[in-house]
Amino acid sequence: MFIHHHKVQFYETDLMGIVHHSNYLRFYEEARVAWAHSKGLISYQTPSSANHFAVYETQVKHRKPTFFGDDLQIEVRAKSVGNRLVFEYRMRGRGNEVCSVAQTIHVPLGIDLKLQRLPAEIKAATEGELWIETWL
Amino acid sequence: MFIHHHKVQFYETDLMGIVHHSNYLRFYEEARVAWAHSKGLISYQTPSSANHFAVYETQVKHRKPTFFGDDLQIEVRAKSVGNRLVFEYRMRGRGNEVCSVAQTIHVPLGIDLKLQRLPAEIKAATEGELWIETWL
Amino acid sequence: MFIHHHKVQFYETDLMGIVHHSNYLRFYEEARVAWAHSKGLISYQTPSSANHFAVYETQVKHRKPTFFGDDLQIEVRAKSVGNRLVFEYRMRGRGNEVCSVAQTIHVPLGIDLKLQRLPAEIKAATEGELWIETWL
Amino acid sequence: MFIHHHKVQFYETDLMGIVHHSNYLRFYEEARVAWAHSKGLISYQTPSSANHFAVYETQVKHRKPTFFGDDLQIEVRAKSVGNRLVFEYRMRGRGNEVCSVAQTIHVPLGIDLKLQRLPAEIKAATEGELWIETWL
Repeated sequence: MFIHHHKVQFYETDLMGIVHHSNYLRFYEEARVAWAHSKGLISYQTPSSANHFAVYETQVKHRKPTFFGDDLQIEVRAKSVGNRLVFEYRMRGRGNEVCSVAQTIHVPLGIDLKLQRLPAEIKAATEGELWIETWL
Repeated sequence: MFIHHHKVQFYETDLMGIVHHSNYLRFYEEARVAWAHSKGLISYQTPSSANHFAVYETQVKHRKPTFFGDDLQIEVRAKSVGNRLVFEYRMRGRGNEVCSVAQTIHVPLGIDLKLQRLPAEIKAATEGELWIETWL
Repeated sequence: MFIHHHKVQFYETDLMGIVHHSNYLRFYEEARVAWAHSKGLISYQTPSSANHFAVYETQVKHRKPTFFGDDLQIEVRAKSVGNRLVFEYRMRGRGNEVCSVAQTIHVPLGIDLKLQRLPAEIKAATEGELWIETWL
Repeated sequence: MFIHHHKVQFYETDLMGIVHHSNYLRFYEEARVAWAHSKGLISYQTPSSANHFAVYETQVKHRKPTFFGDDLQIEVRAKSVGNRLVFEYRMRGRGNEVCSVAQTIHVPLGIDLKLQRLPAEIKAATEGELWIETWL
């Protein structure tokens, strides 16, 4: 299981004293990009390679708040469904408790923002992932 | 129908040349706060009043990208479901086309982050809203 | 004098209960873009036109904090100095008091990130601006 | 010399394909907080301790752009000047070249946003820092 780590920064909090909910999508993007980089699907030297992962739909569930300085652990898993790439995430914060789960769905877009077919290497990269457990 | 306007700023774009998806949750929050303010539910002078609307779940669907300088129009509607406050949003961009729809679910939290009952004035404020049409 | 208005959003605050300082550069960018648009220097339909204003240096002074819901008023003025475009800003918040002043310096860059000469229409646009008063 | 590392995320870029300039203040805050944490001045368990470092003035110089995926290295140094705490930063990106330098000035504020005296442990923490070289 791929796990991404994020340390909560001061600028990610809001006046309720907790992490602002919009930042969860940023943490999940971080985790997704790190996963894709680990699979050789994104090269930071050719940023346009990241364009394959246009965001089609996002869903985030919040179970517990997260706080300044927290060391978040984000589990990532991916699968291909037809022309779509589906990611699920499970975030653990203080006391190793699950504080958020999420799903994002992506479609392959070119630099012209036109829909493309899911590249074979992405299908291949997601084949080994286990989806036995239900997260959301 | 309550409509909130947002002009897309340069700092809300990413290297794909479009608005970063995490910012949609910020635009929808803007719209939700403006709706609540219009109903007398949030006072900017007592910011803790905004704490009633803790985010429990978000779902965003993207149909078309949005761009620097776009004048976004966001329709907002709300309803009470038991102890939860449910918002739906429909965003229109260029050519008045729908570019995103979304739902956010909120629970009333105190400043101590403890769950509270949905205040009567919030239930009352959402009673007049029409939910005939399906958005998501 | 050109004045830009910004209403402080919930997501722009941090756990101190005030606007996070990094957002001031975003508000000043908003004001600068609105100024440039008012002069016909930026077309939202051709976003690459905004590329002329690469940020070279920024300086922000904070005199008073700003808060969720504040209606900020930002005065903008610009002048050309050789190959550079200099902006100054004065922000007023609650009680019409000055809460921040700032200066940003820009150089004209092409889409290839190479330095260019300051376009004549930018020099012309800044000629009528008065810089008698000291802001910073 | 204290060095903080930051990997540039997708959401930190803008439509010019580079890191948006407002994010530099966030990276420098990250570096400052990490520095303070390393000195025992900030405890993540008591976030109010971070309130001692209210931002009074910021100045950022940009020498080279930074890009998605860059591994930024940020050197930090601090000194006390009367009631103020002064930080300087030097950021290195691709090819280990300096891409930005900055200075931020802070004043000690209480949770009531009132000015306080600079705590003795902060003065002590900054005494050993070398400021021979000029960065800005």
